[in-house]
Amino acid sequence: MVDLADVRAAAKRIDGRVRRTPVLAAGPDRWFKLEFTQHAGSFKTRGMMNQILAGEVSAAGLIAASGGNAGLAAAYAARELGHQVEVFVPVTAPAVKVAKLGKLGARVVQEGGEYAEAYAAAVVRAAETGARFCHAYDDPAMVAGNGTIGLELQEQVDFDTVLVAVGGGGLVAGLIAAVSRNARIVAVEPVGARALYAALEAGEPVDVGVGGVAADSLGARRIGDIAFGLARTAKIDSVLVDDAAIVEARRRLWDEHRLVVEHGTAAAQAALISGAYRPEPGERVVVLLCGANTDPADLAT
Amino acid sequence: MVDLADVRAAAKRIDGRVRRTPVLAAGPDRWFKLEFTQHAGSFKTRGMMNQILAGEVSAAGLIAASGGNAGLAAAYAARELGHQVEVFVPVTAPAVKVAKLGKLGARVVQEGGEYAEAYAAAVVRAAETGARFCHAYDDPAMVAGNGTIGLELQEQVDFDTVLVAVGGGGLVAGLIAAVSRNARIVAVEPVGARALYAALEAGEPVDVGVGGVAADSLGARRIGDIAFGLARTAKIDSVLVDDAAIVEARRRLWDEHRLVVEHGTAAAQAALISGAYRPEPGERVVVLLCGANTDPADLAT
Repeated sequence: MVDLADVRAAAKRIDGRVRRTPVLAAGPDRWFKLEFTQHAGSFKTRGMMNQILAGEVSAAGLIAASGGNAGLAAAYAARELGHQVEVFVPVTAPAVKVAKLGKLGARVVQEGGEYAEAYAAAVVRAAETGARFCHAYDDPAMVAGNGTIGLELQEQVDFDTVLVAVGGGGLVAGLIAAVSRNARIVAVEPVGARALYAALEAGEPVDVGVGGVAADSLGARRIGDIAFGLARTAKIDSVLVDDAAIVEARRRLWDEHRLVVEHGTAAAQAALISGAYRPEPGERVVVLLCGANTDPADLAT
Repeated sequence: MVDLADVRAAAKRIDGRVRRTPVLAAGPDRWFKLEFTQHAGSFKTRGMMNQILAGEVSAAGLIAASGGNAGLAAAYAARELGHQVEVFVPVTAPAVKVAKLGKLGARVVQEGGEYAEAYAAAVVRAAETGARFCHAYDDPAMVAGNGTIGLELQEQVDFDTVLVAVGGGGLVAGLIAAVSRNARIVAVEPVGARALYAALEAGEPVDVGVGGVAADSLGARRIGDIAFGLARTAKIDSVLVDDAAIVEARRRLWDEHRLVVEHGTAAAQAALISGAYRPEPGERVVVLLCGANTDPADLAT
């Protein structure tokens, strides 16, 4: 499906085009991986860069569908690689997100009342124009690119466990491919957006309702096939956290560490704070802080 | 005055009580030292911890005068070391700052219309009660504690130059003691708060008017004697940046790196952005990002 060799190939391919992000010692046996300092504010720039570089791009350019991190990553990567890109977002997308995409040089197309419709329109458009459609998470090269975080992390710190927030599963899938031989991977999902949890329970990817404070980044209706396959094979557990724990974790990351992250990212830390995941004594735990495309205004004191 | 041996002794003394803060590669030959992730949100926790540990503390406890980073550092360090602390702030101190100090366990005393009056009241109070007065910057142990950043930085990255914002000079003094044999230290001050610049020009510490966006953290009326002596001996230059460059640097640290820092801290980066300091080709430059006790609300997009 996607394996360590793919992740290694991705690391070679995107070397020099993505940032090596630092690790912060957060206490005894605890570290934060500051991946939110990546270009365009999230890990998705790794995956998107690899996805684009792994295939041909015609003069028709690229197409993505996302008003969030994947759209920003596609816009950033396309600009850096010299390709045109259209990003499809629903008509309900906030003006500031549209403006951000435009600032990165993307042509923004607003179509459909929600994400699924924007996605469908993007796929149709790609077929019409010959532009290459770049998936936000369920693509082997996307997964392999995201997985490079795992290789980098292994070089930076000795750890037993990594906690990672899961939406569509593109990041957890990459981590499984990269480090599951050597480390435990714990998937963390909001109770209101539990695509992986529901799929593992049902034995196959199923549609779930999505809502809550982290829905903007983790609100995938269905887990990606690649992530589901890898998670089931590697016997990864998903633990659930509620919105109150997510909000508290995000607040405390600012109050105690002066780190600003998006709610979806704070979910990973919420698993520790809430006790949804309880490490053993001496267990060395990394919390992957993967995105900060967020409005910091609500952290004002 | 304060030398490398003092800084080494400080590093030993505060080991395990302060955070080792990470370094972020910000581009070719550019790094950020993320010292704002320190306990209580600034480098001052290093100096304050060392200052407290370097002497005796009676049951009367400690006294500090500061509504800003030094007050927070004193409150944090006192709590961790099990001492009582009174922090004197002017009556004009914002309620949120007072609340923050109280939350850390400090007794907050509001006295005087501005900082100088709160300072005077604190010194009088210390003489009355026998509590130990902890200076915010012009104290040898404070300087030596701050200097531990320099030793840590040398272990983390090879660099030629470090850019550091200067207020009362407690941090730049520590850096001079720690690394000036091996690296160039560039002091950066706002045009509206140029205590070191004015002192170097006059040949002695002189009072300056203070104002501008960074005055809350860099607005010392007069450079500390220790900092002045070390800066003159080491022939350190101070470069000036205006408020527009500081605001832009702070905004770009968020937009391009998802780092939130206070205006005073952004001054160091403003020297690069504005061209106030122009590195030679190949010069390896670290920008010391030293504090984030700031309201992130104005970074909203």
